[in-house]
Amino acid sequence: MHGETTLDDPFDINGDTLREECGVFGILGHEDASALTALGLHALQHRGQEAAGIVTLDGDQFRAERHLGLVGDHFSKAETMARLSGMSAIGHVRYSTTGETVLRNVQPLFAELEGGGISICHNGNFTNGLTQRQQLIRDGAICQSTSDSEVVLQLIARSRETKIVDRFIEAITTMEGAYALVALTPKKLIGARDPLGIRPLVLGDLNGAPILASETCALDIIGATFIREVENGEVIVCTPTGIESYFPFGKRPARPCIFEYIYFSRPDSIVGGRSVYDVRRKMGRQLALESHVDADVIVPVPDSGVPAAIGYSQESGIPFELGIIRNHYVGRTFIEPTQQIRNQGVKMKHSANKPIIQGKRVVLIDDSLVRGTTSVKIVQMIREAGAAEVHFRLASPPIRYSDYYGIDTPVREKLLAAKYNLKEMCNYIGADSLSFVSIDGIYKAMGYEGRDNENPQFTDHCFTGDYPTPLTDLHGEKDLVKAPRLVEAS
Amino acid sequence: MHGETTLDDPFDINGDTLREECGVFGILGHEDASALTALGLHALQHRGQEAAGIVTLDGDQFRAERHLGLVGDHFSKAETMARLSGMSAIGHVRYSTTGETVLRNVQPLFAELEGGGISICHNGNFTNGLTQRQQLIRDGAICQSTSDSEVVLQLIARSRETKIVDRFIEAITTMEGAYALVALTPKKLIGARDPLGIRPLVLGDLNGAPILASETCALDIIGATFIREVENGEVIVCTPTGIESYFPFGKRPARPCIFEYIYFSRPDSIVGGRSVYDVRRKMGRQLALESHVDADVIVPVPDSGVPAAIGYSQESGIPFELGIIRNHYVGRTFIEPTQQIRNQGVKMKHSANKPIIQGKRVVLIDDSLVRGTTSVKIVQMIREAGAAEVHFRLASPPIRYSDYYGIDTPVREKLLAAKYNLKEMCNYIGADSLSFVSIDGIYKAMGYEGRDNENPQFTDHCFTGDYPTPLTDLHGEKDLVKAPRLVEAS
Amino acid sequence: MHGETTLDDPFDINGDTLREECGVFGILGHEDASALTALGLHALQHRGQEAAGIVTLDGDQFRAERHLGLVGDHFSKAETMARLSGMSAIGHVRYSTTGETVLRNVQPLFAELEGGGISICHNGNFTNGLTQRQQLIRDGAICQSTSDSEVVLQLIARSRETKIVDRFIEAITTMEGAYALVALTPKKLIGARDPLGIRPLVLGDLNGAPILASETCALDIIGATFIREVENGEVIVCTPTGIESYFPFGKRPARPCIFEYIYFSRPDSIVGGRSVYDVRRKMGRQLALESHVDADVIVPVPDSGVPAAIGYSQESGIPFELGIIRNHYVGRTFIEPTQQIRNQGVKMKHSANKPIIQGKRVVLIDDSLVRGTTSVKIVQMIREAGAAEVHFRLASPPIRYSDYYGIDTPVREKLLAAKYNLKEMCNYIGADSLSFVSIDGIYKAMGYEGRDNENPQFTDHCFTGDYPTPLTDLHGEKDLVKAPRLVEAS
Amino acid sequence: MHGETTLDDPFDINGDTLREECGVFGILGHEDASALTALGLHALQHRGQEAAGIVTLDGDQFRAERHLGLVGDHFSKAETMARLSGMSAIGHVRYSTTGETVLRNVQPLFAELEGGGISICHNGNFTNGLTQRQQLIRDGAICQSTSDSEVVLQLIARSRETKIVDRFIEAITTMEGAYALVALTPKKLIGARDPLGIRPLVLGDLNGAPILASETCALDIIGATFIREVENGEVIVCTPTGIESYFPFGKRPARPCIFEYIYFSRPDSIVGGRSVYDVRRKMGRQLALESHVDADVIVPVPDSGVPAAIGYSQESGIPFELGIIRNHYVGRTFIEPTQQIRNQGVKMKHSANKPIIQGKRVVLIDDSLVRGTTSVKIVQMIREAGAAEVHFRLASPPIRYSDYYGIDTPVREKLLAAKYNLKEMCNYIGADSLSFVSIDGIYKAMGYEGRDNENPQFTDHCFTGDYPTPLTDLHGEKDLVKAPRLVEAS
Repeated sequence: MHGETTLDDPFDINGDTLREECGVFGILGHEDASALTALGLHALQHRGQEAAGIVTLDGDQFRAERHLGLVGDHFSKAETMARLSGMSAIGHVRYSTTGETVLRNVQPLFAELEGGGISICHNGNFTNGLTQRQQLIRDGAICQSTSDSEVVLQLIARSRETKIVDRFIEAITTMEGAYALVALTPKKLIGARDPLGIRPLVLGDLNGAPILASETCALDIIGATFIREVENGEVIVCTPTGIESYFPFGKRPARPCIFEYIYFSRPDSIVGGRSVYDVRRKMGRQLALESHVDADVIVPVPDSGVPAAIGYSQESGIPFELGIIRNHYVGRTFIEPTQQIRNQGVKMKHSANKPIIQGKRVVLIDDSLVRGTTSVKIVQMIREAGAAEVHFRLASPPIRYSDYYGIDTPVREKLLAAKYNLKEMCNYIGADSLSFVSIDGIYKAMGYEGRDNENPQFTDHCFTGDYPTPLTDLHGEKDLVKAPRLVEAS
Repeated sequence: MHGETTLDDPFDINGDTLREECGVFGILGHEDASALTALGLHALQHRGQEAAGIVTLDGDQFRAERHLGLVGDHFSKAETMARLSGMSAIGHVRYSTTGETVLRNVQPLFAELEGGGISICHNGNFTNGLTQRQQLIRDGAICQSTSDSEVVLQLIARSRETKIVDRFIEAITTMEGAYALVALTPKKLIGARDPLGIRPLVLGDLNGAPILASETCALDIIGATFIREVENGEVIVCTPTGIESYFPFGKRPARPCIFEYIYFSRPDSIVGGRSVYDVRRKMGRQLALESHVDADVIVPVPDSGVPAAIGYSQESGIPFELGIIRNHYVGRTFIEPTQQIRNQGVKMKHSANKPIIQGKRVVLIDDSLVRGTTSVKIVQMIREAGAAEVHFRLASPPIRYSDYYGIDTPVREKLLAAKYNLKEMCNYIGADSLSFVSIDGIYKAMGYEGRDNENPQFTDHCFTGDYPTPLTDLHGEKDLVKAPRLVEAS
Repeated sequence: MHGETTLDDPFDINGDTLREECGVFGILGHEDASALTALGLHALQHRGQEAAGIVTLDGDQFRAERHLGLVGDHFSKAETMARLSGMSAIGHVRYSTTGETVLRNVQPLFAELEGGGISICHNGNFTNGLTQRQQLIRDGAICQSTSDSEVVLQLIARSRETKIVDRFIEAITTMEGAYALVALTPKKLIGARDPLGIRPLVLGDLNGAPILASETCALDIIGATFIREVENGEVIVCTPTGIESYFPFGKRPARPCIFEYIYFSRPDSIVGGRSVYDVRRKMGRQLALESHVDADVIVPVPDSGVPAAIGYSQESGIPFELGIIRNHYVGRTFIEPTQQIRNQGVKMKHSANKPIIQGKRVVLIDDSLVRGTTSVKIVQMIREAGAAEVHFRLASPPIRYSDYYGIDTPVREKLLAAKYNLKEMCNYIGADSLSFVSIDGIYKAMGYEGRDNENPQFTDHCFTGDYPTPLTDLHGEKDLVKAPRLVEAS
Repeated sequence: MHGETTLDDPFDINGDTLREECGVFGILGHEDASALTALGLHALQHRGQEAAGIVTLDGDQFRAERHLGLVGDHFSKAETMARLSGMSAIGHVRYSTTGETVLRNVQPLFAELEGGGISICHNGNFTNGLTQRQQLIRDGAICQSTSDSEVVLQLIARSRETKIVDRFIEAITTMEGAYALVALTPKKLIGARDPLGIRPLVLGDLNGAPILASETCALDIIGATFIREVENGEVIVCTPTGIESYFPFGKRPARPCIFEYIYFSRPDSIVGGRSVYDVRRKMGRQLALESHVDADVIVPVPDSGVPAAIGYSQESGIPFELGIIRNHYVGRTFIEPTQQIRNQGVKMKHSANKPIIQGKRVVLIDDSLVRGTTSVKIVQMIREAGAAEVHFRLASPPIRYSDYYGIDTPVREKLLAAKYNLKEMCNYIGADSLSFVSIDGIYKAMGYEGRDNENPQFTDHCFTGDYPTPLTDLHGEKDLVKAPRLVEAS
């Protein structure tokens, strides 16, 4: 669970979070294809709240609706579903940073090919996307979007292979980085996961119709059966007559992103065979074991800290209480304060539950610490509510490195743990004590004895700096065009 | 006037709730009057999400903005606040039933009087509102709204008294029922609470500017100091030179509405000197004492059942877990399902957290049971997630009677506890066992030994049928015009 | 014909016009009542473009839709018409000045009375409206709108008469000034025209359903038959069984507003038995007779000057040409210019047709001259297009006095003809010569030998200062509340 | 690509018209570039009312705003102009058929090239656009729009030339058909007209800043000076240091589209050295000479028939009168009628001016006759208004052939003159007589003795079937993808 908040909302104590960039969904051969896709995307809404799109296939005709805003804002009406006719569909939810949230970047993307068309959705990030894009432009391609996802589509269009699956494989083998891709062609629903399986993708089934989705919660909402995870490096091709698998990169051990457990996936999803909720609670237990403190009350930062706080409470025996109340009617707009009001420390989204806090030794539990800007405010709010002591506990290790695989992290200079040591961090946020769970601790919560440093079980570079793929764009040509040459308001 | 609840949202397990109709706020003599009012209303948003309005006073000129929708939707921009110029303001949030949610009913209401004007806000319901309205129409008044609140305004306008406070008192002494009123005149901010103090109203202070608000959480958000509750039957008149109190009904014991504790007030508010969160947790403890069951896990119905579930867990020692996950991105629109999808039992707002439920003996905790329509679905969802047993526990007694004081309850025939005995109710919702906290139990949670049946400490007719005031409209003239003669779409 | 322009649009050569404030329509007993009313209002749209409203009667239930904007913007959909169910309807289009165009002022107005309800529409202005409003407020009435039309409704509500027609007559006999009123009650459609018949109202019939409308063009659009004009001072009551007439003021000679011919009514309407187009053309002919000038081309100021220009051309033998081109796609928003662009004299709505103008002696024809601000721009535009001479001719006499009967005229100090003599006006607008048609000239165009100064045939105070009724508000109490005490943005 | 006309508006007597598809504008090196472009597009709005777009260049950064709707709807605010910063700009207005009016087709189009970017606007139609598009897709291009204009952009992107002007010329020499193109690069404003100069383009100047525009009226609105027409087959390259011309097709006689005079261009524009208004009036005079009829009144179909009707009246001596009144407040939405209302022949946009028509022998003048559907309604309306005789006269010859150069004509089977002879057409529309001006007649009105059949002076295939270029798409590959494979709703 995480918040729907925009950056730099001064009232927002959840503003300092990581953000996933996307969720994907696809279904082949079901008469309610578009409505089921809308429901699936709704369940994946935590992975992207800024835009949503669905493309269906009705005979040879693709039909698209792409909108800025929530799934429920644009895909709630029967008439929309009627326009999205057809037995197959793919869909996408997207988080994007301000300025790039324009319609041309909303997925699914589409290309008309000679024998038909292809539409694709992408969750993840290509670490050589800009490099490839530059080469494509040199070769005369027109890139409409500023999205790295379009590069795959351009490569598919330019492939000299004749079969669509071969074209798809040729394209993805050109790319590096992290991806869960879902594609729709006139005859096939195709899914693919990067060689390390960094981004998640699962296969499900609803009355014989195969489904691909970022998380199992998207299967649950429509009553579909979970079949299995798409494997790392697998290209899975669903047709009306069956499912085929390709492994163009060969088989090798997976290394999925550990942040799916810590932060991104919904607590009721099963990822890699583990309950996300259960993992988070165990991280809370591990945290209690590693950093005990005498206290009166365990208070979660809502809502992302709740499962870890429950675990911490269960392990430590200190009571769990809702010491911070979340305002459920916030919406996505905020009251612009005068400077005077701003100085009064108004909180729009949360408030301290004073009677629970007053005079107590409080252990605050959150899932992660990024820039620390909002942790400062939380600690201050709890102190102002009269806490005797404030101990800050994080159910993940310090984040010291940026991500390049589809998680929106600040530049390294803004990561609190990249700038400061533990004591400095504790001073910065103003707590009486500060502790993180250890690296080995989170591996223990995952069921291992610890991190296998030779062959790490997870992608965990944010904590360790151990990037599992080349970072071509980052280290390559200096003059890569990183910003779009066209700024569009629409 | 109170109305029927809205049509069932088939996906909404929270659809079967009671609804408060309003929250009020007022401030006198602060340069940020309109922005502070917007923030106060934002904090009171749980009391009404369908419409919001603010009226300010700038010199002799009143300025109004009234809108359907959330506070944040319409009162978030600096330019709106600039239009609402002036040093004093009152504001209102409103819940209203379908068909009546038209702009003319959105408060604050306003009347031009000979020497100036008056604007008022009302939370509550007059039990003789329709009777008085009928008489006013006979006397040539034109009632623009269909709101009972307008009746007070008409009475003020028609009063032959010369001082505004006398006119105000003459008007309210004509009325019966429950009310917290806030009014603004060119020189005064006036508040009033009904003789029994059924609806809440508190007095606060921000740097010398007096504030009236439905709950303390509206003071907290702006950093204001809580002074005291407005007393039952008190008319409080704030002017730049001080605060005066009138008790036109004399002094007598208060009898506030117990539902403010059970359901309406925000958990971080202090009502009648009690922490709402703490009361709810104690009701959960009391419930555990009264209706123990051997079980593996305590699961709250989010979010209303959480504090009671924490209390139940603490008392019983059975672990508290988030067995139902709430989708935070629902918004206010829903995907219209096809019949087939509907039959699959899709849940838009919540989902079962299967790994927590599977094979477990589950105690479900909710705050209240009204019609039971959604409880059926919750129990079914928990069973489908694999629960071994499902025990339903309610942190309030059975609701057997309708409310006429500003709470939107179904007609009596639709109240589950008015139709069925405990066993029938248990069968209806499909649980293995069902228990409510007792009447005396909730009084215990409030700090009493039990209900004083001679002089009940609270308004609790929904459980007991003991209405504390006459119900004139209900029992009076048969041909009272209950529906407006003009239906307006806007 | 006149323009849809707002005040003070710097690019608008039609900005300097008079404005009618309203058009009214009503129909009794037709299954398409609301759609026919929408069409009738559409045909009357030239009388008011800022707001439109319809109230229907379905059994005992009134139904309303009132909106800011054009009829076509809000009353174009079948679903809107379906909401406006019922066999009878009245409707209103309104022009209003900035700041007062708020929803509460949009008509039809409605009052719930004891035995039912009444809805009314008003075109015109009561010259004692504010005086009466002040008295009503003293008596305890709450006036929601700032419209003088509401006063009639309040008087009807307060009348002690028992029959609705008697209440209506009591109310209007209290009022002074100009009015065409249309009212709808559960059984009746009522129309009324002021004692002098200043504002127009006609009676029509569509397959047995009686219709009231401001102009005959509203009958033509729906294929209805014109029966007769409602007479001056007549109250006409239509019921399913027939039509009755009342003359509460007795009978006396009519004195309709001459501006209906000069400017307001549509050219295809028949007013007082005369074709409006024909009258305007004859005014052009009369103008040619009175103020001949040797010239090469007659150019109308589009579109209001076209009929007079045709008449001038026919009388003088000088060719009529479209020397000014109107841009039809202007819409109601305008490009905000930079100062530099503004100085270049950009014209958004019109442009000179240079080849027609260049080197020519041009006679410009317009219908009237108010403040002269736009005439300056027109003359300048024609000169810049290369005209050899520019002669300005007006098909009405100089406007020297303000109106108080429903025409939006500037205060007297801003009327060019009130400030300057003919030569000064000619200098001001920069023309080579300037002429107006004479007072007697317009009476000749109407078919008379001239104005009967003893018993003038028309209301013509704008030219003569001869106001036909008392001006109570203007000359009465000094402290009349002229501005509303509540400013509302919605 | 051109499409079918939109569905008949039953109330619209102007519904049966030809439609131009676009207007273009560009300016280089002026600090008000975007505002001037908005004004220029506003003046060109008659060439396309469905969408508008502007792209500016600010340093190396292009900025775009593209919207469905009128220029005034989206480009009227100072803040929009502020977003469109920069000293150079191009813009486009577009008419488009239903279903294709989606945002991706709104111009200017943009491509990022290696050394910068290019944005283009197109008025006209490529007769080999689909053929080229098919080849591009085979070669791996992704065409985002369904517009033939994108083909040029793709060819520019794929060109192996290094200079942008050479790439541009390589691209246009691949294309056939009609075009006026305006393009913006980081250093240049480029214009081009097809080899025959079918579509218009003029060069202007504002204080040293060169301007390209479809018509001179776009220069007039901003006070710019007309320099000259861009010649047929000319590529004109404007830079800060001067203007260069290229003639990649060599020089040959022009053959501009005669419909610019008959219908499309604004009457106040100068096209090919001729006043459009003057040409239309002369066509009316010629029509009077060729098809005299004894009559009482000349009535134009507003507004397109007015200049010809003035000419006809001047030549014949029969008075010109406004016998049909146009409703200026129609807007773009219409009241949906019930069937009964439809049958009553309601006219939303126009009405007969009965007193002018009744008992008269009427000559109706219109500019052209396409499918005849609305002419039927006009004649009927005039007859119902009581005309003694109705003679229909057209100021252009019979339209017997479809257009493929950017004019939206029906398929040939729907052209009245392709189906019927003169007498049948007269019967169809219900007139007493019907005449068209002759082919030689329109050439006479243009100042020639007649059509030079060896080397026709104008593109006039709609009358003659003499198409001036190959029609490759029409006669080529049978399986050209004519419809887009992706249907998008936005």
